[in-house]
Amino acid sequence: MREAVFMSEVTASITHDVQNVLAIIQQSAGLMSDLLDLSRRESLKSLGLRKGFPYHDKFKTLIGAINEQVDRGTGLSEGLNRLAHAVDERPGPTDAAGMAGLLFFLIGRIARKRRVAFALETSGPVPVDCSPMAALLGMYAVARALIDALSDCAVRVRVEMRGAEPVVVFLLPEGGEGGASVGLPTEMVLGDGAVSIRLDFRDDRIAMVFPSCPSSGQAG
Amino acid sequence: MREAVFMSEVTASITHDVQNVLAIIQQSAGLMSDLLDLSRRESLKSLGLRKGFPYHDKFKTLIGAINEQVDRGTGLSEGLNRLAHAVDERPGPTDAAGMAGLLFFLIGRIARKRRVAFALETSGPVPVDCSPMAALLGMYAVARALIDALSDCAVRVRVEMRGAEPVVVFLLPEGGEGGASVGLPTEMVLGDGAVSIRLDFRDDRIAMVFPSCPSSGQAG
Repeated sequence: MREAVFMSEVTASITHDVQNVLAIIQQSAGLMSDLLDLSRRESLKSLGLRKGFPYHDKFKTLIGAINEQVDRGTGLSEGLNRLAHAVDERPGPTDAAGMAGLLFFLIGRIARKRRVAFALETSGPVPVDCSPMAALLGMYAVARALIDALSDCAVRVRVEMRGAEPVVVFLLPEGGEGGASVGLPTEMVLGDGAVSIRLDFRDDRIAMVFPSCPSSGQAG
Repeated sequence: MREAVFMSEVTASITHDVQNVLAIIQQSAGLMSDLLDLSRRESLKSLGLRKGFPYHDKFKTLIGAINEQVDRGTGLSEGLNRLAHAVDERPGPTDAAGMAGLLFFLIGRIARKRRVAFALETSGPVPVDCSPMAALLGMYAVARALIDALSDCAVRVRVEMRGAEPVVVFLLPEGGEGGASVGLPTEMVLGDGAVSIRLDFRDDRIAMVFPSCPSSGQAG
């Protein structure tokens, strides 16, 4: 069994449990919010005889903070769960735009440590002929090289068709040292040789040219 | 880059974020608990003029439930984080007992789906000469085969030294069909050929014999 398959099975299972944890927290917070509302109504109905809970507003704020974190945690957990399921060995077509969205969400913290931000620009699905994991791995290799080479900057990433070729273009920040200096090869071979991604380097950008789908435009 | 390395970097980062999420939830719940205590003290000091918050006890229960889930979520997240760090390619020695503890925690939910429970029996570290990931992968292969073959039963797992040999023994439930029927090989080769684990099958058990450390007993 491959390490990645083991990790994906465990990750899928644990993220499921984490989502249950967050759901129970959300329910508890929701119930507290309902009880606070009820308490306020009871206090109003008593025409001032029964004073309201003095920390009503403070509690509402804290419950709001909990709900915000539950949403954040659910998003993180779902992202990790999607990554785990990307290990399935489907050959493609894969939507490169969707995978880019997942990747840049997942590596946001890794990039932030170097104060690098990736800004994704897509306008719909871009089908590529490789597995989801190969697409993720290829884009991560470029993103990781940029994170290691850069700091304090934003990198725009465009996922689009260039004629019949699906491309992922990393637009480097002005004053950057050019794409060729980040130590990437001109061709990436992934998935045990099944997938080849060509890299075009220019001063202001790195373009990844993915294998196009036989019936291009039909992602399924 | 290997898939597993990519997954481990992302998983380590995301689990870190999830732990932050849970820490903020815990802080909010702690503050609510403090305010409830304060509210009760104010009410007591007023000698009944100021009535207490009618949902005090209910809130305490709900805050307790949130704290319980935060603990559970933190444990899950830490387990996944430890798995991510096990991808580091250290060759060993590795504590097989510690890795077994991690593994059976991580796959608890996967086993529960088949109503299989693994009960780990260890009495201290058992050093083996392989990477943490190889130890995890090897034990998972056996555990997974048992989960697929069994249901509604408990499997005791002993991690111990048998003479100079470190072993992980899966004691099968009585009335089981014997270890040989679960379709495992008599030797597992892991870590690109670097690690060989021998499997001994008997009616009532499967013993995994791990490579022993050159200076046995010195895990570090």
